[in-house]
Amino acid sequence: MKPTLAITMGDPLGIGPEVVVKALQQEAFYRLCHPLVIGDPEVLKQTVAGLGFDLQIVEVQGVDFEGKPGKIFLLPAFSRPMGEDLRKLPREDSARASFSYIEKAVRLALAGKVHGIVTGPVNKEAIHRAGIPFRGHTEYLAEVSQTEKFVMMLAGERLRVALVTTHIPYAAVATSLSEEGIFNVIEVTSRGLRDFFRISVPRLGVAALNPHAGEGGLFGNEERVISAAVQKARGKGWDVSGPWPADTLFYRAVRGEFDTVVCMYHDQALIPLKLLHFDSAVNITLGLPFIRTSVDHGVAYDLAGRGLASSHSLEEAIRLAAQMAFWRLEARSRE
Amino acid sequence: MKPTLAITMGDPLGIGPEVVVKALQQEAFYRLCHPLVIGDPEVLKQTVAGLGFDLQIVEVQGVDFEGKPGKIFLLPAFSRPMGEDLRKLPREDSARASFSYIEKAVRLALAGKVHGIVTGPVNKEAIHRAGIPFRGHTEYLAEVSQTEKFVMMLAGERLRVALVTTHIPYAAVATSLSEEGIFNVIEVTSRGLRDFFRISVPRLGVAALNPHAGEGGLFGNEERVISAAVQKARGKGWDVSGPWPADTLFYRAVRGEFDTVVCMYHDQALIPLKLLHFDSAVNITLGLPFIRTSVDHGVAYDLAGRGLASSHSLEEAIRLAAQMAFWRLEARSRE
Repeated sequence: MKPTLAITMGDPLGIGPEVVVKALQQEAFYRLCHPLVIGDPEVLKQTVAGLGFDLQIVEVQGVDFEGKPGKIFLLPAFSRPMGEDLRKLPREDSARASFSYIEKAVRLALAGKVHGIVTGPVNKEAIHRAGIPFRGHTEYLAEVSQTEKFVMMLAGERLRVALVTTHIPYAAVATSLSEEGIFNVIEVTSRGLRDFFRISVPRLGVAALNPHAGEGGLFGNEERVISAAVQKARGKGWDVSGPWPADTLFYRAVRGEFDTVVCMYHDQALIPLKLLHFDSAVNITLGLPFIRTSVDHGVAYDLAGRGLASSHSLEEAIRLAAQMAFWRLEARSRE
Repeated sequence: MKPTLAITMGDPLGIGPEVVVKALQQEAFYRLCHPLVIGDPEVLKQTVAGLGFDLQIVEVQGVDFEGKPGKIFLLPAFSRPMGEDLRKLPREDSARASFSYIEKAVRLALAGKVHGIVTGPVNKEAIHRAGIPFRGHTEYLAEVSQTEKFVMMLAGERLRVALVTTHIPYAAVATSLSEEGIFNVIEVTSRGLRDFFRISVPRLGVAALNPHAGEGGLFGNEERVISAAVQKARGKGWDVSGPWPADTLFYRAVRGEFDTVVCMYHDQALIPLKLLHFDSAVNITLGLPFIRTSVDHGVAYDLAGRGLASSHSLEEAIRLAAQMAFWRLEARSRE
């Protein structure tokens, strides 16, 4: 009954390899799932040696393996001539390598070989500069799996947020909001909470865009569009309300009034989330045909190779992916 | 040495009268300051009676009084025929009355009769509908005192934020940012922290506008303007840095890295502030020729008259105004 999870190593020049190794040297994870790392064998071996762990890197070519403590099962993905040290490559090459791990993982997931993907940190800007049009894991995974309705959610113990817009400029947000787009996020989020979080009647609080929710139109009018989407969702009988002034909404959610806050833009969601869950939140993509969680931090190039990175976020991401796989089975058994 | 503080009662139909009475029935405040309430005698008397307090409302015509526990000294401000019950007026009339209290308070402050103003909650929208072009206390006080450089700051025990833009639509923020405007906020905030908060070398963290601080231009370019302002401030020798990604900046500030976070827009500042300090933050206007603090909540019409409102925020606002008056004296004595 243990799910198989593909774990991408992240950018080789970042802290990804280190947090993967730090997480998977813990026995507990092998009780939860069969972890399959996708990345570079040399980088992982160097990382294990650098950290002084007694861990074996076992290269496999598929998912026919049984996870065992003391061993990291690895599907190797090369993006360079053998023997060349990835750590000495220009940042773009390293970014390109990190992208190839994601490609492999998504192929396994779409083929039903793994139950979910847990992604390590990559550098969007470097991938972009390497010539790959990449706006983020979430957007890429949706595109390649031909998923039209998907949601980026971040979950911590005290707060969950779902995003209507994600990695776009601040100035592009207002014109990107549509009744249909907001309704879709409400729909996918509600379904996700039912299917993967064991919440039978999810309560969503939807944030306003403008200060004081526009204070009756005095500070903007986008609340009309948000309100229309909320009304449509309520018409379906769902427990959804808003648009609420964003400045007090997160406090209310933390106090237990809402299961998830639907946010209009990146920082609206990430500011409260990171304040409460600096290194323990998990990034989730809802709506995909497979489970996907991710670390909630960046590559932290400056921290890489020093053995100081916290693997807490990756551990939470693996734990939650395994938990979601279990809850999904449970939800299906009730249908 | 106790400062005299003018306390405006706020909208008569809101929770303002109740929180004023609840705060001033506490002896402690008379040790800190001479509080002078500006508002409506009938409303205050009804509120005192409704709450069952043993408090006398003493009407005065100026500041020649000595604050005493058990008495609320009141400068009456009428905006209606005598004897008419303010509580039964339309919301606009009530809002107009609340505006008249602010007008009186600012006249006293500009004449040097009081050391500071502590403002109760008003309803901007209702004042606006009553035909008074009012965007908020902060903007009004700046205008009437002919203050060009002023800053809205919110302060809680764990976090202080200063705002570059305040009550404007979300969509108007990006085009409202200018190097000069941001620099002015940095300057006024730094000076304010030195003069009123006893921080000799204030450390300011300046937030970015775009997600991930624009991630190298991938998600917007406003960071260039912010950066130029930060560089100019650093050129003056001030301890200012940024633009930092907003999602992690508040966590860093709370951990002690910055004395204040300079924010680009209302919700960027208010979301983290209210999450940490739901009813204990104080709203401060820096840069005015007098001290000004305020409650950090609205009129809460639905809660009014029920005796359930918390006076915590007003108490903090009075305490901080008194403290700021003391620290200013101390700062001047060191010059």
